[in-house]
Amino acid sequence: MQEFTKFPTKTGRRSLSRSISQSSTDSYSSAASYTDSSDDEVSPREKQQTNSKGSSNFCVKNIKQAEFGRREIEIAEQDMSALISLRKRAQGEKPLAGAKIVGCTHITAQTAVLIETLCALGAQCRWSACNIYSTQNEVAAALAEAGVAVFAWKGESEDDFWWCIDRCVNMDGWQANMILDDGGDLTHWVYKKYPNVFKKIRGIVEESVTGVHRLYQLSKAGKLCVPAMNVNDSVTKQKFDNLYCCRESILDGLKRTTDVMFGGKQVVVCGYGEVGKGCCAALKALGAIVYITEIDPICALQACMDGFRVVKLNEVIRQVDVVITCTGNKNVVTREHLDRMKNSCIVCNMGHSNTEIDVTSLRTPELTWERVRSQVDHVIWPDGKRVVLLAEGRLLNLSCSTVPTFVLSITATTQALALIELYNAPEGRYKQDVYLLPKKMGETSPHEPHTLKEIFFKITFIFFLFLSS
Amino acid sequence: MQEFTKFPTKTGRRSLSRSISQSSTDSYSSAASYTDSSDDEVSPREKQQTNSKGSSNFCVKNIKQAEFGRREIEIAEQDMSALISLRKRAQGEKPLAGAKIVGCTHITAQTAVLIETLCALGAQCRWSACNIYSTQNEVAAALAEAGVAVFAWKGESEDDFWWCIDRCVNMDGWQANMILDDGGDLTHWVYKKYPNVFKKIRGIVEESVTGVHRLYQLSKAGKLCVPAMNVNDSVTKQKFDNLYCCRESILDGLKRTTDVMFGGKQVVVCGYGEVGKGCCAALKALGAIVYITEIDPICALQACMDGFRVVKLNEVIRQVDVVITCTGNKNVVTREHLDRMKNSCIVCNMGHSNTEIDVTSLRTPELTWERVRSQVDHVIWPDGKRVVLLAEGRLLNLSCSTVPTFVLSITATTQALALIELYNAPEGRYKQDVYLLPKKMGETSPHEPHTLKEIFFKITFIFFLFLSS
Amino acid sequence: MQEFTKFPTKTGRRSLSRSISQSSTDSYSSAASYTDSSDDEVSPREKQQTNSKGSSNFCVKNIKQAEFGRREIEIAEQDMSALISLRKRAQGEKPLAGAKIVGCTHITAQTAVLIETLCALGAQCRWSACNIYSTQNEVAAALAEAGVAVFAWKGESEDDFWWCIDRCVNMDGWQANMILDDGGDLTHWVYKKYPNVFKKIRGIVEESVTGVHRLYQLSKAGKLCVPAMNVNDSVTKQKFDNLYCCRESILDGLKRTTDVMFGGKQVVVCGYGEVGKGCCAALKALGAIVYITEIDPICALQACMDGFRVVKLNEVIRQVDVVITCTGNKNVVTREHLDRMKNSCIVCNMGHSNTEIDVTSLRTPELTWERVRSQVDHVIWPDGKRVVLLAEGRLLNLSCSTVPTFVLSITATTQALALIELYNAPEGRYKQDVYLLPKKMGETSPHEPHTLKEIFFKITFIFFLFLSS
Amino acid sequence: MQEFTKFPTKTGRRSLSRSISQSSTDSYSSAASYTDSSDDEVSPREKQQTNSKGSSNFCVKNIKQAEFGRREIEIAEQDMSALISLRKRAQGEKPLAGAKIVGCTHITAQTAVLIETLCALGAQCRWSACNIYSTQNEVAAALAEAGVAVFAWKGESEDDFWWCIDRCVNMDGWQANMILDDGGDLTHWVYKKYPNVFKKIRGIVEESVTGVHRLYQLSKAGKLCVPAMNVNDSVTKQKFDNLYCCRESILDGLKRTTDVMFGGKQVVVCGYGEVGKGCCAALKALGAIVYITEIDPICALQACMDGFRVVKLNEVIRQVDVVITCTGNKNVVTREHLDRMKNSCIVCNMGHSNTEIDVTSLRTPELTWERVRSQVDHVIWPDGKRVVLLAEGRLLNLSCSTVPTFVLSITATTQALALIELYNAPEGRYKQDVYLLPKKMGETSPHEPHTLKEIFFKITFIFFLFLSS
Repeated sequence: MQEFTKFPTKTGRRSLSRSISQSSTDSYSSAASYTDSSDDEVSPREKQQTNSKGSSNFCVKNIKQAEFGRREIEIAEQDMSALISLRKRAQGEKPLAGAKIVGCTHITAQTAVLIETLCALGAQCRWSACNIYSTQNEVAAALAEAGVAVFAWKGESEDDFWWCIDRCVNMDGWQANMILDDGGDLTHWVYKKYPNVFKKIRGIVEESVTGVHRLYQLSKAGKLCVPAMNVNDSVTKQKFDNLYCCRESILDGLKRTTDVMFGGKQVVVCGYGEVGKGCCAALKALGAIVYITEIDPICALQACMDGFRVVKLNEVIRQVDVVITCTGNKNVVTREHLDRMKNSCIVCNMGHSNTEIDVTSLRTPELTWERVRSQVDHVIWPDGKRVVLLAEGRLLNLSCSTVPTFVLSITATTQALALIELYNAPEGRYKQDVYLLPKKMGETSPHEPHTLKEIFFKITFIFFLFLSS
Repeated sequence: MQEFTKFPTKTGRRSLSRSISQSSTDSYSSAASYTDSSDDEVSPREKQQTNSKGSSNFCVKNIKQAEFGRREIEIAEQDMSALISLRKRAQGEKPLAGAKIVGCTHITAQTAVLIETLCALGAQCRWSACNIYSTQNEVAAALAEAGVAVFAWKGESEDDFWWCIDRCVNMDGWQANMILDDGGDLTHWVYKKYPNVFKKIRGIVEESVTGVHRLYQLSKAGKLCVPAMNVNDSVTKQKFDNLYCCRESILDGLKRTTDVMFGGKQVVVCGYGEVGKGCCAALKALGAIVYITEIDPICALQACMDGFRVVKLNEVIRQVDVVITCTGNKNVVTREHLDRMKNSCIVCNMGHSNTEIDVTSLRTPELTWERVRSQVDHVIWPDGKRVVLLAEGRLLNLSCSTVPTFVLSITATTQALALIELYNAPEGRYKQDVYLLPKKMGETSPHEPHTLKEIFFKITFIFFLFLSS
Repeated sequence: MQEFTKFPTKTGRRSLSRSISQSSTDSYSSAASYTDSSDDEVSPREKQQTNSKGSSNFCVKNIKQAEFGRREIEIAEQDMSALISLRKRAQGEKPLAGAKIVGCTHITAQTAVLIETLCALGAQCRWSACNIYSTQNEVAAALAEAGVAVFAWKGESEDDFWWCIDRCVNMDGWQANMILDDGGDLTHWVYKKYPNVFKKIRGIVEESVTGVHRLYQLSKAGKLCVPAMNVNDSVTKQKFDNLYCCRESILDGLKRTTDVMFGGKQVVVCGYGEVGKGCCAALKALGAIVYITEIDPICALQACMDGFRVVKLNEVIRQVDVVITCTGNKNVVTREHLDRMKNSCIVCNMGHSNTEIDVTSLRTPELTWERVRSQVDHVIWPDGKRVVLLAEGRLLNLSCSTVPTFVLSITATTQALALIELYNAPEGRYKQDVYLLPKKMGETSPHEPHTLKEIFFKITFIFFLFLSS
Repeated sequence: MQEFTKFPTKTGRRSLSRSISQSSTDSYSSAASYTDSSDDEVSPREKQQTNSKGSSNFCVKNIKQAEFGRREIEIAEQDMSALISLRKRAQGEKPLAGAKIVGCTHITAQTAVLIETLCALGAQCRWSACNIYSTQNEVAAALAEAGVAVFAWKGESEDDFWWCIDRCVNMDGWQANMILDDGGDLTHWVYKKYPNVFKKIRGIVEESVTGVHRLYQLSKAGKLCVPAMNVNDSVTKQKFDNLYCCRESILDGLKRTTDVMFGGKQVVVCGYGEVGKGCCAALKALGAIVYITEIDPICALQACMDGFRVVKLNEVIRQVDVVITCTGNKNVVTREHLDRMKNSCIVCNMGHSNTEIDVTSLRTPELTWERVRSQVDHVIWPDGKRVVLLAEGRLLNLSCSTVPTFVLSITATTQALALIELYNAPEGRYKQDVYLLPKKMGETSPHEPHTLKEIFFKITFIFFLFLSS
């Protein structure tokens, strides 16, 4: 019997969650290259490692990379001032004293800052990775060296993945009372394998769309016996993930892959939602001539009032230098469009999934594919025309750019505050339900406890203080 | 006994309704100066006037101004293509054949285009003014000449106001079956004086916040026996009235009153809601250095991410050249602030009411007021310092700028479509309730009939077609 | 015999000089309406007027308007801080003590601030108007009341014009030693009629292109016995007159005449020089979709890199809502273009003369002209199509907008400093030649005295101090 | 005896020439990593290599890399349409038939496109590298494989450098009649070592400031017997190298090194020349709050009118997140400034040389340097404060970004056209002088032949055609 109707695959889940940095391995700034160079083929599960204090309560690729990882964490701290501030402010009160948190997130320098903040606030933490590829090994090593029970490495097998989660939960003499999850796998594991632990959990904080979806299913089925909080859907996070991030990552992603000059280029952006708005604002500001395709009349009207020509893709496809999709729909760019593009036209996707460009239609014998750089393919037509396809149609911003630490710190601070709130809430304030952070000021529905709004305020005020100081 | 808890005064109502052009008499482009010059002091109620077809079924200032008014209407038609298009499309079907509409709105060239569209679609119309000052007499004359039963002139007394409304409703052998209202006065009058008429009304379309508020009160009290539609709160209208309009009218209003150069000026904008966002975008684009004050953390964060410095008003009050309020709050600019401003600082209000600047505090003996132009006062301190106060703290965009016809045409088209929908809806589709046009796509609540969304789509698609054609 | 090959008519001269406010009478902010209402038809030359101190050493329309004129001057002072600062700084030294200046400029509130500054610095001034229409009568009255010998009124005849100039120069016991001219008429008069005075002049400061042209002709002919300084061509003045001013006046001019909404409008701007750059930047920022026509390849390239589509006028003429010319060429917009425009298209000129739009071609029997407002004509085609022609093709920025006081203060300050420099320069520093203020930093040619650069620096530093304070 | 007063070192020369891509080895997109990985330590001079046609008339690192180099050239061709177009148009006429060109430039994919275009137009070419580090070995291999006599590799010794140049010039039965130089070393060599060749040269085209300087010295000394053309100083090239390039590379350079989010960041830009204008426009557009320091009053005024606050560095140094220098001066950022910066402040240089930031002052014992990434150092104060120094104060745009191919194609096209012009000019059109391409339209001085202007026009028209197509 299955509680969750759709058990998402690793891949499926990743494409839904906009703020993950899964693809940071592809990008210049990632430290991943260091960890790649490891020629050590022994599985971490078979290694005997101890940190400098003699503890072996962890499982990472190579504890010796701890120093390098520490430096990465320190760099990340530079741009996570909201979290550091929270750490300093709440350190005296230890609001998480007694909290036993099991976590399952990407293991990166930024999440390390979160984990160490939770520890500084009094929590005990055990941690695994929510993605088999995204772990920065040296950061995991640094966490292990600092005494965090971390079980994660880059390139886990599926079996490794569940083994790591289990090691976090299943420990003699230690029983988790809080869950911090990204994707719902940890929650699922505890719910299924350790129902007695699950019942005593004081709160779940969930980051991803998929995870929240699964919680709602549990709740509908009457089987969610724990209050849970969705930290994904606050207006702040949405604005940052889409408008503000994409405004920067479209430039960054195009530049790193193609070195294209933006000035004077003709660009068509498909979709004028938040992502599209961000892309268009940036490209326009740098001197590109931008066209929009849009089927939603309100978004189209906004595009008009913002000074963009709204067109049908067919009208401009022959003349544009760059095509960018951000609609959330399938096959927005078809083989027919691709056939009509001019030589050296760049095609990429900033939208919700990897289906916006019909890449499959390009896998035909008459077309030649040439990988000219990492993430950059030339697809060559029989007459010599080349189309420059980026990231094989996957998300450009995740594949060829990085998510700024500042943005990640927004999520991380929200998660920390949500954990504090749930852990300290008086009995009965939160029911066995899924709570959404209010999407807009003043939208809290009557049944939501007032403190949700207060959390929200706290978070944004902290950001605000640091931004304007 | 009183159904409406708060019966708003004329003045009070005006300040709530953002899209009225009540103050257009102050503005350059208004035709009002023509009507002012009339030295005819006889009340229109005492005059005997007939139009060229021999009808005297109207009451206006001077039927002889009809030709001039016709020209004003024709000019307005140039920028109301959505409405003209609706007129052409629906003219064959006559979707309002049989409709008997009583209306109470501002009587301007733009509303004349609406009224004549309703007639072209088959309706019979009787009309009065919702504001005692805002009627363009020559437009009223043109409507009367064209056969519309219009009862309105600039400078009505309160008694005139109700007399005109009554003349619209109370006519032998003619009984209204639709109401188009702006402010709720007409609705109130029919409800109170002609309950039998009220019961047979097929629908009310209401434009203003106040009017909608009164309808809700009726509905709560179980006394609303008619479906009503609020056309004020659609996302399109809100965006236009605030963001897009204010982006233009802040420049226009400042220029017409002070001829100030924007480039290089330091400006503080109090409030970064939609109005503030519009003002800031325009001023930044023209080379002003813009500071923001904001207490809402999300808006403050948006200001930061849009590249504005968020400050406390006291930090910058000594150095700025222009102070603009758009918070919706009271006494945002106090006497203390005004005391500290530098010589020739300009102060104006774009916000929700006339209370944002504490103008009362300037009515003290030590300060000299000098009216230097229409809508421009110099307030002079004992040491000779002058502060330039615009529109005595009332709304700059209404007092010293004009609302573009294009924007008014959005409201007008929405009103026309709402009337068509209510008039043609099958029995039972609409209950005795107040319907709000959906604020956002996909926000229609379950009990709302699907056609509301369809109306919305129709409207925006028409705009879109004309914008992008 | 004629020294000046081309003696420009009043009209001709006006169209050359970009910074005059000749057309300010059309604009809202002008005080001209007050002076128009005068029903006094007696020529000022025939009136006996004395100011409050008993002097009648002036000739103005009506000395009783002095108080109103004084207020206009005070308003102007608010935005001329550079000049006021100069007044304060140099007041102690009286650097113009002994200077006897004859001046011939527009008589407006702004030039009044200049004249009174010269007086405060020690000069004696006698002044006439350089344009028969542009005098603000009340300002002339205020100057006369303050003791300045001013001879000017709105609506002079050609005979009056020269009579006024002569009254400035020809006075017993007073001989001018400096000339401040705008157009060269005063200089010409002194040169021809009072050669003995001319020889003893210590310096001429000339504002206009035409005047400078005439000085060069004199110089070539070996007849210029006085150093002259062209204050027209500094880079600062050029930038302000073109880029910065037009960036604001295109919006102002369109709004005051048509109340058009900019957002979403399609606009074609002919010419991407400084004027075009200013227009395009402003319109783009307010949400218009802007196309450029340009024949100079460098300007076209700049347009491309700034994100504008460069097109041929024919490509877009059917779809645009607004056509703006700023090329400096003739017949850029032809009858053929006008025939193809869509209904209610707005056509206006921001360029160098009134010849860019072929207005003459519209004076044909099949087209109906309808004056709908001041400066706004509807030209109506047989099929009912209307084209909205602004200012009959003359300069929109001069006809339908105002030049900000701040910009005028730049010229005025430059003129004051040039007078101080020429008056105080040691014998021999300046030859009998025309000196141009350097167009760019470091461009001073070897034979130019170093102090020109210093003047320039002084001016700009003063502005800078006030802008950034 | 020495003709050239200052013989620049390799390093010195590099810092003067803005458009070189010397530092592209540091950047992600460079192919340099491939060539680095070579563990082949044998000097190319000692190797025996032949291309597939059996020729060994070249000297490169490894002829086997030709295929990879060919692909890089093909990628470059995608964005050099102006040059490709020239190739196609002039291929029939072979305007360089008979030309024997020796060249000395950076050897990159982009210059390869130029060289192959010259060959396609009929020229015979022999080529060496103008910089010992900048050669892309695989591109040199591809050129050699295609039959070009190229003598260049990455990491030449100084001796190698001159040996390569000599191999180009000194070949039995082949005598150069044209020179294309970048830096003047080749010209110097021919002038000194092969005076008889030098005398018969028909023209020199020189790219760099240094090279032009040396040509002027020769000319002054009466020893330049050849017409030379400076292709560096055209307005087009200057605009691209500074304004348009830096507008993009400031974002690119900061992102690739630090992943910083621009939105909401406070940035001070020192200097508001063309480079500063580009940086500020880009940062402002992406939501940064930008301050300017500027000592030139005209530039300061422009900054004001563009909406930036002009400040003294000391006023803002404690609060800013990023400091960018682009003044061209020395020690603009001093140790004192660095001491006062806040934690994690980023400091970088976009200006003319590596002296704007006083990096030397940071080499003191109390400060710890930590290299956190390539081109990124953390300088750590005793209290733990970190300043993030990029590229050790060298040019960020060259060290941490790439020059877009499009920009390089402008220079390359200009060089090609200049060669065509000089080679085909009738006897006597060009004297033994250095010709500068006109900086602005209409600025050609009387002694310059008209065709210079024509060249200029041709170039820009070609660009224009491709940009707007």
